[in-house]
Amino acid sequence: MQSFRLTLTYDGTDFSGSQIQPGERTVQGELETALGKLCSTAVRATFAGRTDRGVHAIGQIATARSLEWTASAEDLQSALNASLPDDLVAADVVGCPDSFHPRFDALWREYRYWIAPGLLSPFLGRYAWTPRADIDTSAVRAAASVLVGTHDFASFASGGEGVPWSSRAGRPKGTIRTLFVSDCRELATNFAWHEARSNKFIEVRVVADAFLPKMVRNIVGALVEVGQGRRDPAWISELLAARDRRLGSAVAPPRGLTLWRVGFDGDVIDY
Amino acid sequence: MQSFRLTLTYDGTDFSGSQIQPGERTVQGELETALGKLCSTAVRATFAGRTDRGVHAIGQIATARSLEWTASAEDLQSALNASLPDDLVAADVVGCPDSFHPRFDALWREYRYWIAPGLLSPFLGRYAWTPRADIDTSAVRAAASVLVGTHDFASFASGGEGVPWSSRAGRPKGTIRTLFVSDCRELATNFAWHEARSNKFIEVRVVADAFLPKMVRNIVGALVEVGQGRRDPAWISELLAARDRRLGSAVAPPRGLTLWRVGFDGDVIDY
Repeated sequence: MQSFRLTLTYDGTDFSGSQIQPGERTVQGELETALGKLCSTAVRATFAGRTDRGVHAIGQIATARSLEWTASAEDLQSALNASLPDDLVAADVVGCPDSFHPRFDALWREYRYWIAPGLLSPFLGRYAWTPRADIDTSAVRAAASVLVGTHDFASFASGGEGVPWSSRAGRPKGTIRTLFVSDCRELATNFAWHEARSNKFIEVRVVADAFLPKMVRNIVGALVEVGQGRRDPAWISELLAARDRRLGSAVAPPRGLTLWRVGFDGDVIDY
Repeated sequence: MQSFRLTLTYDGTDFSGSQIQPGERTVQGELETALGKLCSTAVRATFAGRTDRGVHAIGQIATARSLEWTASAEDLQSALNASLPDDLVAADVVGCPDSFHPRFDALWREYRYWIAPGLLSPFLGRYAWTPRADIDTSAVRAAASVLVGTHDFASFASGGEGVPWSSRAGRPKGTIRTLFVSDCRELATNFAWHEARSNKFIEVRVVADAFLPKMVRNIVGALVEVGQGRRDPAWISELLAARDRRLGSAVAPPRGLTLWRVGFDGDVIDY
């Protein structure tokens, strides 16, 4: 019996989110099915964070504990990738102590959100929000910087209350979270698809101890209101202070969002 | 009544090819359905080239003749993109003379094929062949260069005989075609997905007056045999001279292939 830590990368387009649900195609469901086949026994996987329907991941972390697997972690990775569907990849598999818990032991999560104003592309359009109107990147950057620090993010939490979140580092109360990074930059549009070259490609990057439900997409929705000039940059501070989700913007669509990285003890945030 | 020339971009993953077929989801089928709704009458579209199941396009050209559309080409583009599914985009729509024919008037076609040895990615893996073994790019380049010029490509044509191909510039006989470009380079792996950064990303580029069925994928299959050292570089010349498809390699998978551009009078090949 061995326990493994898996780094999962997935295209969220065709998944009903990460968390298993009866009758739905989910990341956890596909992973547990594949593991179950390999080990000839029911396997439960635990995830570092829950991603919603349509949200992608580069570095989701999951554990599979006490597996009936006698070969190496590398062999498990190969066997898993031969069995998993094309839109879900085990990017890394390593052995881990039974005591490792991907959610409780996580110290921070990094999300990235891509926005490509006016882009018409069936390729990058799968992974970016493509609103029609142009966006002022420096206005978005200024507005994003206001959110850095420890705040009550109730105005950015769909579903009102915080998730029952905890970590070994402590349990934050309600809707208070700490944003270590809240930034925005234009990516060099050097994607190999030339259609994208003439377009602005904006990446919003947020790193926090943990996130409330739909928090990143609510933040991006609000930042784009500022970037498109419909709201004053000062509005973000007012919204934060108001602690009322009803005053916020519409939620940004899931397809632009990717869970980029989960940080554990010893991992360093890329500032 | 107006005629329009459309530039189509599509993710071929979920299409059964470009050409309409009963009971199948095809690019032509989706386009004609959208045009039919907008014009309230049955519309037939004509395509510059046929792409197989799973093959993508950046610059497929299609015409819709004698449409019941009184507004502008720009309005038609907006209305089409609001109606088309997410994996099919009208990247450009312009008016054209009734006499314009996207297949007969095309002077050349450019295809690109992406190969990323060992890449594990649900994102770029949709658009690239990811064989396990490494590939020697310069060996592929040397082998590819042998194919430039006018040759009998019977060894690279699945289905044996050439398609009933013709253009106003003349009708080539059987399996003889002219390759203007046959090259290969490594793309800077500056995709925004960092998982790809450590991987080699190879692009094979071919431009010809026209292509035989599965010709590009058969060429790529053979080039990769050389690039992985299973065949001597001289084998490509022997294969070309043999004019026998049975001597060739396995066909490369469709997901790596993109119809990049179709050239008409006045368009310049990018050498």
